[in-house]
Amino acid sequence: MKDIKVFAPASVSNVGPGFDIMGFAINEPGDEIVLRKRSDKNIVITKITGDNNLLPLDPALNTTSVAVAAVLKDCGIETGLNIEIRKKMGIGSGLGSSAASAVGGVYAVNELLELGLSKDELLKPAMTGEYAASKAMHADNVAPALYGGFILVRSYDPIDIIKLPVPGTLYCSILYPGIEIRTCDARRILPRSVKMKTAVSQAGNSASFVTALLTKDYKLMSRSIVDSLAEPFRSRLIPGYDEIREAALAVGAINCNITGSGPSMFALSRSKSKADEISKAMLKASSKFTKKNKSYVSGINKKGPRII
Amino acid sequence: MKDIKVFAPASVSNVGPGFDIMGFAINEPGDEIVLRKRSDKNIVITKITGDNNLLPLDPALNTTSVAVAAVLKDCGIETGLNIEIRKKMGIGSGLGSSAASAVGGVYAVNELLELGLSKDELLKPAMTGEYAASKAMHADNVAPALYGGFILVRSYDPIDIIKLPVPGTLYCSILYPGIEIRTCDARRILPRSVKMKTAVSQAGNSASFVTALLTKDYKLMSRSIVDSLAEPFRSRLIPGYDEIREAALAVGAINCNITGSGPSMFALSRSKSKADEISKAMLKASSKFTKKNKSYVSGINKKGPRII
Repeated sequence: MKDIKVFAPASVSNVGPGFDIMGFAINEPGDEIVLRKRSDKNIVITKITGDNNLLPLDPALNTTSVAVAAVLKDCGIETGLNIEIRKKMGIGSGLGSSAASAVGGVYAVNELLELGLSKDELLKPAMTGEYAASKAMHADNVAPALYGGFILVRSYDPIDIIKLPVPGTLYCSILYPGIEIRTCDARRILPRSVKMKTAVSQAGNSASFVTALLTKDYKLMSRSIVDSLAEPFRSRLIPGYDEIREAALAVGAINCNITGSGPSMFALSRSKSKADEISKAMLKASSKFTKKNKSYVSGINKKGPRII
Repeated sequence: MKDIKVFAPASVSNVGPGFDIMGFAINEPGDEIVLRKRSDKNIVITKITGDNNLLPLDPALNTTSVAVAAVLKDCGIETGLNIEIRKKMGIGSGLGSSAASAVGGVYAVNELLELGLSKDELLKPAMTGEYAASKAMHADNVAPALYGGFILVRSYDPIDIIKLPVPGTLYCSILYPGIEIRTCDARRILPRSVKMKTAVSQAGNSASFVTALLTKDYKLMSRSIVDSLAEPFRSRLIPGYDEIREAALAVGAINCNITGSGPSMFALSRSKSKADEISKAMLKASSKFTKKNKSYVSGINKKGPRII
C-alpha cells in the first residue's frame, strides 16, 4: 500500500452535564485524511482544503502531522509521508474539528504502515495532535472520534476512558452558526471555582444522564442533560442561544445544548424524521441572528474512523 | 388493627462521588417503630430505647412523630397514636439513623390506618420528619430507607428520585467508630465553593460509578468510588481514617469511604465471606484509635421498611 484515505468523524463533546468528561461521535460531518509514502524521511503537508487557510502547513504545528509524528515516534520509525487534509467541518465549530484531523492521522498511519497498534495505543498520539491545536490535553473529542459511540472520560491522570452503550434509536441534529468561537476564549470566560451546590448538581445530572443512556429512559435523559458548569457562561457567546434552544424543544427534542465550546448546538431525538424537523426549526430560529448557518442530521457513529 | 411494629433499615449515603445525591439501604442495623391507636387525638411518644436519652420525647421535635404527623396532615386525618421507638443504631453514626426513624414512622402509620399511600407519597412526610433532626431537606438517606436499593437523588427542586438496579452480589461492611459526629458540624467544615476541576472530577466519577453499578463492572466501581467534595475534609474528623481504609483495601474491599457525614465507614465487596473478612480488618485497625467500635456486615436491602 502506497497511500490511504481515511474518514474521521466529528464529535459532540461537553454533552450536557458531561462538561470535559463526555462526548459521542457522529456520522457526519467528518474530515478526510490522505497519506502517501515518500521516498525520503520528511513529513510534508501537501494540501489542506476547506479550512479557509486557517490551519498551519508547518508539520511541527499542524494537528494531523503532529499526531502522525507521535505515532511514528512511539514505534521508533522514521518514514516520509505526504499528508493531505480535507476539512469538512468548520474550525472552532465545537464539533471536534482538530480531534477528527488528529484521529484521522493516527488511524491512517497505523493502517498504511501496518503498525498493528490498538485504538488504546493510538489514543495518546491523537491527544498529542489535538494538543497542537487546543493547547489542552483533552480526550472528550479525541476518544469518541477514535472509538466511536458515547465515551466517558473518568480521569486524565491516569487516562481512564469508558465506552458507554449507545441506544440504537438516537439521532443528533446539529446547528452550526456561522461564527467562530476559539476554544481558548470559551475556556477563559469560565470561573475557576464553583459553588459546592453547583458541583453536587452537576454530579447528580451526570450520574442521571448515564443512567438514562444505559436504561434507555429518554424522559430522564431530557431532565438530566443540563450543564451547570460551562453552559451558563458560554451560552452568552452564541447569538440566539435561547431562541434556538426553545425552537428545538418546541418540536420535541430531548435536549438542546452547546457542543464543545460552541458555537454549534446539538439536539437529540429518537427518529430520523424528528431529527430533520428539529434541524429545520433550529436553522430557522438561528437565521434571525447569524448568517451562513449550517445544519447536520446524523445517527451516532459507532465505529470511529474508517478507510474510504 | 390496633397496633403495628415496623422495621426500617439503616442506609449508607454520600456513596463515594454520590455526595448529597446517592445512597443505598442495608439489611442491618435498622430501627423498630411501634404504633398503637389511642382513644383520644394526641400523638404521644411513650418510650424510646437505645438512644442514650439523646432523642426528644416531645412529639413536635421528634423525627418519627413529626413524620407521622406530616402523613396525617397530608390526609386530613386526626388520630391519636402512641409511638414507641427502638433505636438499633447510633445517633449521629452516619447510617441514616433519623431517616430510618422517619421512614419507619410514615410506613407504620400508612399501614396501621390503611391509608393506601404510595411510597412516592410517603417520601415528603418522611423528609419532613428527618428535617426535624438534621434541619436539612435531604433525601439521600430517607429515599433508600423508604424504597430500598440504590437511590440517586438527581434534584431536590423538584424532587427527582431515580432507583438504580442493585447488583445481586454486593455486600457492605460497616465500621462504626465509637464517636459521634453531628451532621451539622460535618457540614460546617465543608467549603462553600470548590475548584472547577474538582467539580468536573466529581461529575466524572459519579457518572462512572453509576456505569459500574449498571454494568456490574467492579474494577470500574473501585476506581470511581471517590469523593472529591466532602471526604477530603470530613476524613479528618475520623480517628484512624487512613488506617481503617488501608486495612479494608488490603484484604480486597472494592472501596472504603465515609458513609453520611461519618464517623461510620463502609466497604463494598462481592461475597459474604469477603465482607466478614473486611469487617474484621476494619474493626482491628480502628481499635487503635477509638473504643466501643461496632461493625456490621449486610447485603443491600432491596425492599425498604417491613412489618415485623
